Amino acid sequence: MTELSKEACAACEIGAPLVSNDQQIELLKELDNWIIDSSGISKLIKEFKFNNYDQSIRFANLIADLAESQDHHPKIILEWGSVSLEWWSHKIEGLHMNDFICAAKSDLIYNDFD
Amino acid sequence: MTELSKEACAACEIGAPLVSNDQQIELLKELDNWIIDSSGISKLIKEFKFNNYDQSIRFANLIADLAESQDHHPKIILEWGSVSLEWWSHKIEGLHMNDFICAAKSDLIYNDFD
Repeated sequence: MTELSKEACAACEIGAPLVSNDQQIELLKELDNWIIDSSGISKLIKEFKFNNYDQSIRFANLIADLAESQDHHPKIILEWGSVSLEWWSHKIEGLHMNDFICAAKSDLIYNDFD
Repeated sequence: MTELSKEACAACEIGAPLVSNDQQIELLKELDNWIIDSSGISKLIKEFKFNNYDQSIRFANLIADLAESQDHHPKIILEWGSVSLEWWSHKIEGLHMNDFICAAKSDLIYNDFD
């Protein structure tokens, strides 16, 4: 478990600080194979693979529970054998520390998944 | 309830017939505001709006139940206030009658939703 995954999301209001580019690179090292898509609003993205649909939908529901518990909601893209997550902060149109925290928590959920 | 929504998906194997362009136009009229995206593999797409996350996740789960019951699985894109569905048939890389049937069934689930 990374330290990041133990943190809780802070309230993110308009004007809250974006994570700097240098900090993004450092934080990515604490995550498991996430990428940053900066083609538009920067987003943290990862595709999680599953062996069947039941696993995919159960994982998506666990991520939804996480989203509600942190009051921070990713885009969840559910397909037969995969769930892709996109974390970003709408109010600041980019990446907040909350997004890295939630990505780390998503990894933890996946690693504990059976 | 449209007649389309009462039908069941047939097994769709490689080589099964694509729905013709003319037939697509006719079938779209039986659906509620779906669009066909033909920029790549043709897909039937619709965004369903919700007032909160609980509604979004409950609707996504009902669509997942539909997917399992029909053995046909859409892309489900879950966000805070919306669920977007994309139905297409992987094995024939385009639109099969099954996709229109499942779109109609999705409308029915949405209309019965509270």
